[in-house]
Amino acid sequence: MAEVTPVRGTRDYLPAEMRLRDRVQTIIQKSYQRNGFSRIQTPMLEHIDLLDKSEGGENLNLIFKILKRGQKLDLSKEMLEEQDLVDMGLRFDLTLPLSRYYANNRAQLRLPFKVIQIGQVFRAERPQRGRLREFYQCDIDIIGDASNQAEIELIHTTAKTLREIGFENFTVKINDRRILFELIESVGFLPEDTMSVCIVFDKLDKIGKDGVRAELLEKAYDEETVDRFIATIGDGKTGDLVAIGHMLPENEAVAGLSHIIDSVRELARDNYHIEFDRSLARGMGYYTGTIFEVVSPDFNSAIAGGGRYDRMIGKLVGEDVPAVGFSIGFERICQILLDKEDCSMATEDRRLALIFDEADPFIAVIRKADELRESGYEVTTMRKQKKLGRQFAALQREGFAAALVYGDSEMRSLTEE
Amino acid sequence: MAEVTPVRGTRDYLPAEMRLRDRVQTIIQKSYQRNGFSRIQTPMLEHIDLLDKSEGGENLNLIFKILKRGQKLDLSKEMLEEQDLVDMGLRFDLTLPLSRYYANNRAQLRLPFKVIQIGQVFRAERPQRGRLREFYQCDIDIIGDASNQAEIELIHTTAKTLREIGFENFTVKINDRRILFELIESVGFLPEDTMSVCIVFDKLDKIGKDGVRAELLEKAYDEETVDRFIATIGDGKTGDLVAIGHMLPENEAVAGLSHIIDSVRELARDNYHIEFDRSLARGMGYYTGTIFEVVSPDFNSAIAGGGRYDRMIGKLVGEDVPAVGFSIGFERICQILLDKEDCSMATEDRRLALIFDEADPFIAVIRKADELRESGYEVTTMRKQKKLGRQFAALQREGFAAALVYGDSEMRSLTEE
Repeated sequence: MAEVTPVRGTRDYLPAEMRLRDRVQTIIQKSYQRNGFSRIQTPMLEHIDLLDKSEGGENLNLIFKILKRGQKLDLSKEMLEEQDLVDMGLRFDLTLPLSRYYANNRAQLRLPFKVIQIGQVFRAERPQRGRLREFYQCDIDIIGDASNQAEIELIHTTAKTLREIGFENFTVKINDRRILFELIESVGFLPEDTMSVCIVFDKLDKIGKDGVRAELLEKAYDEETVDRFIATIGDGKTGDLVAIGHMLPENEAVAGLSHIIDSVRELARDNYHIEFDRSLARGMGYYTGTIFEVVSPDFNSAIAGGGRYDRMIGKLVGEDVPAVGFSIGFERICQILLDKEDCSMATEDRRLALIFDEADPFIAVIRKADELRESGYEVTTMRKQKKLGRQFAALQREGFAAALVYGDSEMRSLTEE
Repeated sequence: MAEVTPVRGTRDYLPAEMRLRDRVQTIIQKSYQRNGFSRIQTPMLEHIDLLDKSEGGENLNLIFKILKRGQKLDLSKEMLEEQDLVDMGLRFDLTLPLSRYYANNRAQLRLPFKVIQIGQVFRAERPQRGRLREFYQCDIDIIGDASNQAEIELIHTTAKTLREIGFENFTVKINDRRILFELIESVGFLPEDTMSVCIVFDKLDKIGKDGVRAELLEKAYDEETVDRFIATIGDGKTGDLVAIGHMLPENEAVAGLSHIIDSVRELARDNYHIEFDRSLARGMGYYTGTIFEVVSPDFNSAIAGGGRYDRMIGKLVGEDVPAVGFSIGFERICQILLDKEDCSMATEDRRLALIFDEADPFIAVIRKADELRESGYEVTTMRKQKKLGRQFAALQREGFAAALVYGDSEMRSLTEE
């Protein structure tokens, strides 16, 4: 018999969980649209060169590659290498495809381009709880706005969307790569090493200060420099932007962060929080300015993240186009909601079972169902089982609100039998 | 500069087309749900063995295969074959993954299982207009109902859904593989050749009688048998079920088809049509009984298709489980709608532009936008351009309904400047 479990790191979704996922996705998409963003779509498949040569950080090691087809695939060649075998890969995020999309379609797009992307991405991660190899991302991006108004609008829209889903008391952490880079260089790292140090530094949450120190030493950086850097990080996760301003008086990012933080605080009206976090780094290589994440004591990892990538599109079109994006971690959010409620038990008011007997005229049964559907119900027709009480109990577990036995004039509560 | 067009056979979707696609997908999903079906999801990635050993007909030659990763990929081996290189593939339809899904999750599923699947599938077809390598399918299936009530419900639900999208005067063509098989055997083909003859016969629409004859002769079937078969097909595309009943008096499929056709006609109330088509074959190897398609003189290929596959799940679970499905050709439908209307010009009543000036307080602009959003508008904020008339004209082309210039008390029509 063939293997019937899904491939490693992927999942089948049962109807109850799927209803939750659809509900959350609809809230996100509608909220994004109401806030003036427009949905686009790019293919799952991308040119392997585009993926391989991008600044995707550790994701570059996680690309699923597609075998060449037909005459393009020559297995008779000696000393085959991966590049002989593949010409496409599956997208590992939605930001790189968006840059290609913008480059391809820019003649038809108005700037600023405020864009929604919702769809699956693929990463060959080591499978573990909450980490899938095929998963959804829900992104908004603003292309063509170099001002901080773009950040303010993205943060405001994402925060409102998270609140609509039901999240409260979260905090937006924000930093700027230009501050991070200057701090890294100020302790003695070379400019060409800043990105690499930055990506190691992003693991602070997971591996701690000692882990960051060890990993930097492993990369053969000078021990004194590393220790100066570790000392600079400070103890608290959050730092004082004013103090940083004194340390780096020339850094223009400081004033920008101040402005974003003040504006978002005013818009947030204490419904959520925003704070500077000097230790926030983010893992992608392509961020050039602001970076941000949404965290909360209620869950142990970020539920949204993003940042500014002003030089990514330039690599495709020849001149830089400012861009900034914010991505909601759809899978994390669904997992948190699933852990909170037993969604398999959630009753849906409008979901009815119309129960019929072998002897009932089937066309009339369907017409009765259609009548109920026209008054707004979701109606599933099903045959009566021998033990109606047991059938009702099962329907209740499935989330049906009530049942109508064909021929009866009244609906029945599922707890009644 | 890197290649920025999408990979061959795939597409980028611009906002206006995406709005049409989202609208159609929402109608389909809501209609399916209202008719008592529940949505599930399977991964895009599947075990290569499952795909390769399936009865997917010509689709088996069109599978995108994923390169093995890490230590599993050994390129030092001599005489490498494809099977050394790949362990997964992208799904080419939603029916095979559904069978695997059912086998994997059957302990948690109630029968009959009425299921919705909406999602992308991948086929390495030769790209041509209307034929993509990555495209959506929208399927409903009923698992666990051997009676013709399943067919009646699928046809009724699909027809209602097509009507909600705006299609009228279409015809459901229906046949039964058991009739086709008996006809094929009755002219002298061997039982083991029936499926292969059937799949060639399915191309009748595209290559005509002469093409079918030529392709069968190419496969080295006996010329006399082939000619007897060609004569049996008859001239008209549709045939008389009563005549077939006389020809094949023992065939139980004839009564079943009669019952389905009569029932659907009663439910259709002349809103659409259903007729027997003795030349309908369908390309998949796995169909075992009824097969059906939706056609219309208004468009030149089927917009929906499906059939019964009672033995597919059995190959995975060890005992046969009846199953039947109907798939709406989402891409065909969107193409027909796009050809009909210029969707880039479609105005959306609730879509507003809030136009502000560099000098306006940005927080107040956002608050004004939020206020309009709370009364049900989709509001995009954007900076005022030098030529407001030209900006208005561009917004109208994008589908905006009106604009509010920040500070004004009244909205402006986009044609007014």
